[in-house]
Amino acid sequence: MPVDDSAVPDGEVRVFSVRGVPEIRPGDDLARLLGDALARAGGVRRGDILAVTQKVVSKAEGRLVHLPEIEPSVLARHIAGQADKDARQVEVVLREAVRIVRMVDGLIIAETAHGYVCANAGVDASNVAPETVCLLPVDPDASAEGIRAALTRRFFPEAGPAEHPLGVIVTDSFGRPWRRGIVNVAIGVAGMSPFADYRGQVDSAGYELKASVLAVADELASAAELVMHKIAAVPAAIIRGYAWPADGETGTARDLVMSSERDLFR
Amino acid sequence: MPVDDSAVPDGEVRVFSVRGVPEIRPGDDLARLLGDALARAGGVRRGDILAVTQKVVSKAEGRLVHLPEIEPSVLARHIAGQADKDARQVEVVLREAVRIVRMVDGLIIAETAHGYVCANAGVDASNVAPETVCLLPVDPDASAEGIRAALTRRFFPEAGPAEHPLGVIVTDSFGRPWRRGIVNVAIGVAGMSPFADYRGQVDSAGYELKASVLAVADELASAAELVMHKIAAVPAAIIRGYAWPADGETGTARDLVMSSERDLFR
Repeated sequence: MPVDDSAVPDGEVRVFSVRGVPEIRPGDDLARLLGDALARAGGVRRGDILAVTQKVVSKAEGRLVHLPEIEPSVLARHIAGQADKDARQVEVVLREAVRIVRMVDGLIIAETAHGYVCANAGVDASNVAPETVCLLPVDPDASAEGIRAALTRRFFPEAGPAEHPLGVIVTDSFGRPWRRGIVNVAIGVAGMSPFADYRGQVDSAGYELKASVLAVADELASAAELVMHKIAAVPAAIIRGYAWPADGETGTARDLVMSSERDLFR
Repeated sequence: MPVDDSAVPDGEVRVFSVRGVPEIRPGDDLARLLGDALARAGGVRRGDILAVTQKVVSKAEGRLVHLPEIEPSVLARHIAGQADKDARQVEVVLREAVRIVRMVDGLIIAETAHGYVCANAGVDASNVAPETVCLLPVDPDASAEGIRAALTRRFFPEAGPAEHPLGVIVTDSFGRPWRRGIVNVAIGVAGMSPFADYRGQVDSAGYELKASVLAVADELASAAELVMHKIAAVPAAIIRGYAWPADGETGTARDLVMSSERDLFR
C-alpha cells in the first residue's frame, strides 16, 4: 500500500492494495497481521474502508476441509460422476448448502446458511493447499466486526464506542444471473451501512427518487477487486475518500440479502 | 475532476468525478462536451477509463419520450391500475421490453432488445423534465465507441487505429436477484475487454483457476458510481491506474450478456 499523505481531493476515491500480509494459517490473528501491514504502509485514516478477501478470513478462522477426511454421499458421487468432479468436494458443497438453486452439468448454485446464493455454496479450492477446500466464514459480518473493532482500537484509540472511523468489508467473487463473469461483492460488513439510500430525495428536475437504494458495500467490494489480483494474492485493499458518514447508521452484509418473501427469483 | 499530475502508484486505482459537464440536450455532441470538461481538468492519460452514465448518453441521443404523446394499451392501463402507476409510462416500458421476466405489484423486470434484464426495461423518470421518461440508448456499445473514438482523436491524435489509449464504459444502475439494492453495471463498453480472464493461470498453491473470469467492466462501473451522485448529477468519472492492456483485446458490453442457452435463470 503506497501511502500518499496528501488528502484525497473532493470528488475522488483512491483504492490501494495492502501488501506484505503473510500467508495466513488457521488460528492466525488476522486483524493484527493486517494492522501490521497497514502500519508499515503509514496506517489508516479516519473514513477509510478496509476490504478483505473471504479467503484470508476463512483461512484464519480455520474454515478449511481436508478432502481425504470426507466420505461422499451417494448423491455427491452421482453428481460428481456426471461432471467429472471430485465427489468429496461435491459432498462439502452439499453440506454447506441449505438449498440447491440450480444444478446443471456439475455446476451447483446453492444458497448458503447466510442466505447468499453462489456457485458451490462458496466452497473453493483456489489459493489453498492441495487436497483442501475453503469454506465461507461461519459469520462474515462477525468476522468484519472483529477486524473493525481490533483495528479501531489500534489506530483510533480515542474513538468512542458509537464512532466508526473505519469500515470493514469482507469480499468474495460471485456470479450473477443474466450476466457473464463474476464480480466482487460484500459478504461481511462492519462499521458502515451497506446502502446509500436516496429515496425521498429530489433530483434536479424536482422528481422524487423512488428506487434509488444503492448497494454501496457491493460497489466498494468491486472497486477493491481492481487492485486485488487473484494470482498475486493481494488479500486486502484500502478505499480512501469515499464519503460515508463516520457517525452514521451501520449495518451488515446480511442486510444485503433479499428476504425470501420479497425475492422474485427464489 | 481535480487532476493530480503525479503518476498513480503501482497497486493503486484512482476514481475522479468529471465535473462541469453542462445539462445535456438532444442533439448535443456529448463527446465534445465531455472532452471540454476533461480538457479543463487537465486532460486524460494513456490507460484512463472514462465511465459515462446512461442518462446523459440517452439525453444526447434524444432517447426521451414525452408522456402526453403516449396512448396506453389496455394491458398498460390494467398493470398501472393495479399499482397506482402512470399507464403511459407502463406503456413505454412494455414497448422497450422484448420479454417480461417478472411482474409483481407494478414492478416490471424486463429483458431489453440489448439482452439486459432490468427494472422497467431501463425506462426511467429521474433527472429528466416533467412528463418525460428516458430510454436506454439504442446501442450503448456504439455510443461508447463513438465517445471513445472522438476523445481518442482529440487527446491521442498520434494513436494508431489498433491502439486503445482510452477505454469508455456507459453505466446504469441495475438490481440483481437475491441481493437488495442496485449497483452500477456496464451497458456499453469500447476500447477494452469487459473481462479479466484468469482461467488456466495457476495460483500460489499450483491450483489451476477454473471459474475466474472477472466482469471487470461491471466492477469499474461500480467503482465509478462511488464518485457519481444521483442528486449532484455527476455524469462521468475517470478511472486511472487500473492495469489493462492498452493494446490488448477489446470487447463490448453485449459480451457481458449471458446467452439464453447458457443462462440458468431465464
